[in-house]
Amino acid sequence: MKTEPISYMRRALELAKKGLGTVAPNPMVGALLIKNNNVIGEGYHKQKGGPHAEVAAIEDAEKSGENIEDSWLFCTLEPCCHLNKLTPPCTDLIINKKISKVFVACLDPNPEVAGKGVQKLRDHGIEVEVGLLEKEACDLNKVFFKYIIHKKPYLHLKVAMTLDGKMFSQTGSSKWITSEVARKEVHALRKHYDGIWVGMNTLLNDDPSLNTRDGEKVIKENSKVIIGDIQKLRDSKLKVMNHKDKVYFLNTGFEERNDINSYSFNNDFNEALDWLGANGITSLLVEGGSKLISGLIENDIYDEISIYLAPKLIGNGSSLYESEINFDMERAKELKGAWRLLDSNEAVFEVKK
Amino acid sequence: MKTEPISYMRRALELAKKGLGTVAPNPMVGALLIKNNNVIGEGYHKQKGGPHAEVAAIEDAEKSGENIEDSWLFCTLEPCCHLNKLTPPCTDLIINKKISKVFVACLDPNPEVAGKGVQKLRDHGIEVEVGLLEKEACDLNKVFFKYIIHKKPYLHLKVAMTLDGKMFSQTGSSKWITSEVARKEVHALRKHYDGIWVGMNTLLNDDPSLNTRDGEKVIKENSKVIIGDIQKLRDSKLKVMNHKDKVYFLNTGFEERNDINSYSFNNDFNEALDWLGANGITSLLVEGGSKLISGLIENDIYDEISIYLAPKLIGNGSSLYESEINFDMERAKELKGAWRLLDSNEAVFEVKK
Repeated sequence: MKTEPISYMRRALELAKKGLGTVAPNPMVGALLIKNNNVIGEGYHKQKGGPHAEVAAIEDAEKSGENIEDSWLFCTLEPCCHLNKLTPPCTDLIINKKISKVFVACLDPNPEVAGKGVQKLRDHGIEVEVGLLEKEACDLNKVFFKYIIHKKPYLHLKVAMTLDGKMFSQTGSSKWITSEVARKEVHALRKHYDGIWVGMNTLLNDDPSLNTRDGEKVIKENSKVIIGDIQKLRDSKLKVMNHKDKVYFLNTGFEERNDINSYSFNNDFNEALDWLGANGITSLLVEGGSKLISGLIENDIYDEISIYLAPKLIGNGSSLYESEINFDMERAKELKGAWRLLDSNEAVFEVKK
Repeated sequence: MKTEPISYMRRALELAKKGLGTVAPNPMVGALLIKNNNVIGEGYHKQKGGPHAEVAAIEDAEKSGENIEDSWLFCTLEPCCHLNKLTPPCTDLIINKKISKVFVACLDPNPEVAGKGVQKLRDHGIEVEVGLLEKEACDLNKVFFKYIIHKKPYLHLKVAMTLDGKMFSQTGSSKWITSEVARKEVHALRKHYDGIWVGMNTLLNDDPSLNTRDGEKVIKENSKVIIGDIQKLRDSKLKVMNHKDKVYFLNTGFEERNDINSYSFNNDFNEALDWLGANGITSLLVEGGSKLISGLIENDIYDEISIYLAPKLIGNGSSLYESEINFDMERAKELKGAWRLLDSNEAVFEVKK
């Protein structure tokens, strides 16, 4: 029985996902070589600087002594054609290896590629089909796409709150609003993102490590973006200070510090994001507190929001959205999103721009 | 093909539901007579004072000239056996008509029945099976059960709020938090309940009619329970005052009024509910505002809560749960409930005690 092309592309997407957390600022890409309806090679982009998925798939096939000529290549992202890299363009390799047909899930928005890769292959008589599982493939690299186009990190705001909209109790405590199910999910999310961004109050109240752990084991030391007055860090024994090189400080105070990467924040989030982008941070999970989240939502500066709602009532405390302005209900800010239910009696409202 | 008993009971439940909104303070009951695997009679309790479902089903069969002897009776509620009513006990009728088997979904918690009806039938050699679709049948009459046992109205708190937990904006507006889908659902809910309960602020801000409408047409003039200082009603042209006889006032002020049913509220919700129960109010939909809802939740005085969440942010405003006390997050009040998603991008969290 003949396998449908869509199944091969699905497999290529699975391969691509193996690069999660290690390829940034590059995209996750998977590739599959098919001949006579058999998989003869598989590959994915493993880490920044390493071989591209197409190269890996071709090497995999050649290692097994397969003849690549006239084979079909399935790529989750458009093969590269630009020369300003250490590795040669994948399009040339595909042409040289006499691959006869290429399936591309999603075009590369990188202005140096952006359809030129596909065009080059077609110019050399290779049949190219674009768009198979396009949405899935584009979603997979939403972070990369944002960064490559805007040179700003992709922003995912994560909020855990009670049913009465409180992220913290009046006493400052936020441990634990949500169940372990939700907390594990959020922790898994950290692996997806270069950095974690919190406000000064959250940092001082919770002393978080801002890294990714599997149980007790640290599996990723994320960049740690902090916004607030840098003076408040003085003499502190905060956990983040054990990884000073990973700290990026958006300083709202006047004093400066030379031992920490810092930026003088002048109330313009977009400029601050440019600075973070220039420092190679492609994506950020924003974990609070309420002032930071409110500021970003109020200015519409986010790509994604996940609001975890635990069925609890606390009464007093800091709200998700602290606004200085008193609006009528009809002027409330509407969020376009969708609900997802967790098995822990909690719900998540997910907004994607 | 033989129809399963459960199908007959399901039909009896459907019949019972036809009494919705007209039988209170009596329970909704449906009955079905089966002979040789055919339905020979159907009936339900139509209105307070009217014939019971069993009587209606038997009359229905006899009108068609059916022989009831040796037939099977399906009842959603245990047949009555007490004598202090205008109508004779249903158990006697069942015995006299020589019905051979009775299926009862749910026992009647009324202390005057409570298993005695079933016992009487068994004492007369009639086979009785209890418990078929019991949960559905008990849920159907949750209001009746609460009232018959506690002589207090069943309380259903209804809250519509923004994602940041606000029921009203700082300007006092609450129109409209939720979509039409949710509002229609809430309006349909009013038909289920004897009365609607609001606080004085809601009454003065919104001037609600507190009735049940189908489009523009009023289909039920609910009892209108109001809590607050009765002095504030002076000179008011509020809509509820067009149905003064339907108004039940829980007065928190010192002044009194003779033209309105009123009760001097001394901060004891349970005593106030006793007074409302004594006035024949079996069930109430509590529609706010925030002070009333908070007070009832804080004192754990409710049978059911429905929290409608609209994906909006307003910033400032009155919260669902205004507590005077500052708790740590670990001492937050946990609600046991379940989520239900509406097709309008809204979600409802439903708590049932």
